[in-house]
Amino acid sequence: MTAARTARLDALLSPTTIAVVGASPDLHIFRGRTLRVMLGHPFAGRIYPVSRSHTEIQGLPAYPSLAAIPEPVDLAILIIPAELIPDELERCGRAGVKAAMILASGFGETRSAAGHALQARIVEIAERHGLIVCGPNAEGYANTAAALCATFSPAVEHLGMPLVPPWRTRGHVAVIAQSGGMGFGLFDRGRPRELPFSYVITTGNEASLEAFEIVEHLLDDGRSDVFLMYLESIKDVPRFERVAARALAAGKPIIVTKVGTSDAGVRASLAHTGAVAGDHAAHHAMFRRHGVIEAGDLDEMLDLAVAFSLCRERLPAGPRVGIGSASGGGGAWLADACVAAGLTIPLLDAPTRALLDQLIPAYGCSQNPVDATAQAIVQSGYTELARVIAGSDSVDAVIMIVSGRLTASFEKERDKLAALAEASAKPILLWSYTLPSADATRILSQAGYPLFTGMQSLARTVAAMVQYRRARERARQEPCESRRRA
Amino acid sequence: MTAARTARLDALLSPTTIAVVGASPDLHIFRGRTLRVMLGHPFAGRIYPVSRSHTEIQGLPAYPSLAAIPEPVDLAILIIPAELIPDELERCGRAGVKAAMILASGFGETRSAAGHALQARIVEIAERHGLIVCGPNAEGYANTAAALCATFSPAVEHLGMPLVPPWRTRGHVAVIAQSGGMGFGLFDRGRPRELPFSYVITTGNEASLEAFEIVEHLLDDGRSDVFLMYLESIKDVPRFERVAARALAAGKPIIVTKVGTSDAGVRASLAHTGAVAGDHAAHHAMFRRHGVIEAGDLDEMLDLAVAFSLCRERLPAGPRVGIGSASGGGGAWLADACVAAGLTIPLLDAPTRALLDQLIPAYGCSQNPVDATAQAIVQSGYTELARVIAGSDSVDAVIMIVSGRLTASFEKERDKLAALAEASAKPILLWSYTLPSADATRILSQAGYPLFTGMQSLARTVAAMVQYRRARERARQEPCESRRRA
Repeated sequence: MTAARTARLDALLSPTTIAVVGASPDLHIFRGRTLRVMLGHPFAGRIYPVSRSHTEIQGLPAYPSLAAIPEPVDLAILIIPAELIPDELERCGRAGVKAAMILASGFGETRSAAGHALQARIVEIAERHGLIVCGPNAEGYANTAAALCATFSPAVEHLGMPLVPPWRTRGHVAVIAQSGGMGFGLFDRGRPRELPFSYVITTGNEASLEAFEIVEHLLDDGRSDVFLMYLESIKDVPRFERVAARALAAGKPIIVTKVGTSDAGVRASLAHTGAVAGDHAAHHAMFRRHGVIEAGDLDEMLDLAVAFSLCRERLPAGPRVGIGSASGGGGAWLADACVAAGLTIPLLDAPTRALLDQLIPAYGCSQNPVDATAQAIVQSGYTELARVIAGSDSVDAVIMIVSGRLTASFEKERDKLAALAEASAKPILLWSYTLPSADATRILSQAGYPLFTGMQSLARTVAAMVQYRRARERARQEPCESRRRA
Repeated sequence: MTAARTARLDALLSPTTIAVVGASPDLHIFRGRTLRVMLGHPFAGRIYPVSRSHTEIQGLPAYPSLAAIPEPVDLAILIIPAELIPDELERCGRAGVKAAMILASGFGETRSAAGHALQARIVEIAERHGLIVCGPNAEGYANTAAALCATFSPAVEHLGMPLVPPWRTRGHVAVIAQSGGMGFGLFDRGRPRELPFSYVITTGNEASLEAFEIVEHLLDDGRSDVFLMYLESIKDVPRFERVAARALAAGKPIIVTKVGTSDAGVRASLAHTGAVAGDHAAHHAMFRRHGVIEAGDLDEMLDLAVAFSLCRERLPAGPRVGIGSASGGGGAWLADACVAAGLTIPLLDAPTRALLDQLIPAYGCSQNPVDATAQAIVQSGYTELARVIAGSDSVDAVIMIVSGRLTASFEKERDKLAALAEASAKPILLWSYTLPSADATRILSQAGYPLFTGMQSLARTVAAMVQYRRARERARQEPCESRRRA
């Protein structure tokens, strides 16, 4: 990536001055909502509404044109009808605007020649001016560190909590999605799980800026450790391969959903963003080769993100899982789910079992799954049990089955749990059979524990952690050239 | 089932007089918690604590023995140490108690000969007195219509809402589970989804009362339309076959998880309830033959329950699904998930598309998935879109993709949505890509719409609905005998 393009991507994602072209006082339409959502966060930069019909909008002075804005503009957000976009983009280029984001629809995703022609003009204008253009047909983005939510998505409005859990200093998750609904849907579901999102970036038709160029930029910017991507097509395979290899080497997992595994999915992608889905089997092989993790739905993507966000520096060395549980039934069920996902549940070694037998009553069982019984958990808590299982040479990872409904027990164990998570070289993950309370989720996440409710998805997540570690080891062993030939 | 046994099962599940043997004022132990949980609900029957060391417990007069209770006892709940259970059970039999529930552990689930001997004595005493005995090693039960929660499970304590949504008059769900954690876990997760539970019954070791005898009884009692079962073994195959055939004929689906698909699951079941898991492939074939639906985790069980609870009288006649969406990306993704689950997403017929094209803008798409675009939903709502898709001869079921985060739009459409659900002969199911609010969940459920968040699980649920309808048709066509030979 050239330095100029890097600077312009910075202008797109971390602007100081923003023009909102088409801004409106009407909060029921996207043109009004976008400005409103932006103003709902303490963004420190300057926002200039551009409007032909108002001199003030939502408390800000409005300008009749881009040219009338009194300082250079980093980012122009264009929310005007499709047919007006090319001329406005031309004006952006002439005014020295560095980046544009087009939220309007009606381009390559339509069946009309006119829409395709409009999109071709966007590409031509962007190239001629060296302008970064995100979209068209995008839903905007959030840059949480900048408190900038340049989007009409309700997911970042009236949030009732900070955009990022204030105590999180690493393990941040970047979302890059062609679909605004799915991109901000990941944020909407992930934030209550205490996931720290660095960015949510929606790219729409990706006419001249595609997802993996953004990933490349975010690898440089260094504020993201996990990438969640919703893709309808991969437009630049060599770039994908370069970026994926770089992310793998850095231990920053790329978790993707690539739609178009069915005919209906293929035609829906074409109608949604004009994307040509391409051959699914080829994509699957390419992802596998580069350690890119595929996920089947929003919750699976988030489960993977929660696990890697907290445990990417202590991935399991192999597939052997130790299960500790207050619920014997839950242990049996989870054991089945783990084996179905390709993991193993070995019998624990004699020294570990001897230690466990001191903790649990006679009607429990130390074999693995370890059925500690509810009584033992009430009496001596989860920490000691998890510590003993994690200490066993027989296992590579630990899953503790907990009830996240009540908070008191975790509050009591908070410090011990945190110390164990800090000390353990193996990941310790939690599955709650009850619906976790918000407080329990926060306490456990703060103590360093990923918390799950989906049993099958958790099992697949642990299997993916094992595979990801192997992919990294493979990549380190193979010279670059042989990997390219594979 | 004999009339006497039916009466005694009634005494177990709908008692008027209950003795709590081993009740305690200490709310930190199960003996105290069980009484406390019972007293937290407006049960209209009479509760008699039995204690050797107290004359009053939690505000109730306590009795030194069963024999001292001034009236006949329907149900005795035994929460005393395992070694004291046989003698107490003998006293129950002599006192004319009709049913007993043993919450104590330390029986057939242990590795000790003593535990197994104690369990054998329970069976012998129960048979000799004709006493119904639930457990041992059970976690109790809830009978919601009676406001009776005879359990120490925190899931039914401090609920903050009625045990059952007050507006639900049918589609009730009975849980029967060998595991207390999993049984009450289903309630804990299902109640916030507005599921109406009739019973949650945990059966533990099933020494002399097994799950399918309870199902048989509940088919008679008529207050349950869907059965969720967590099984570690099936002890009486002929009864299973009889009960499953009867439930299928009544259109009351049995949704099971049978653990023990892995070696680790098998040994965990043995340690948990002393269950001999049996051959998985044989169970799978047996379930399939009898229209019993298998589910992979708690959320899949609940998704199936939500769907059948509201739509069991309008199951899809075939696998053709119409998808309507505000999010084009969501539509493409869900189409892939549906096809992966064995459903089809046909192109819609020309008349339907002509109707749809009047509702959605040019950059949307009426093909199927129908990408209505967010703008069309904001302008004209979900109802009209769903009505047109459901009216198409090309589809057997409809899935609408919604954002359940905000409630206002559903409030506005509430009556129209309810009228459509009432009129439609095809199921219309909703998938929310955002986390649904409690209000949205309630409004939509009240309007007759099952609401889902798991995309893959929803697709499998619709496929199961299709298969269940086929299983019923097959059962109606085949004479009983040939079905037995199959």
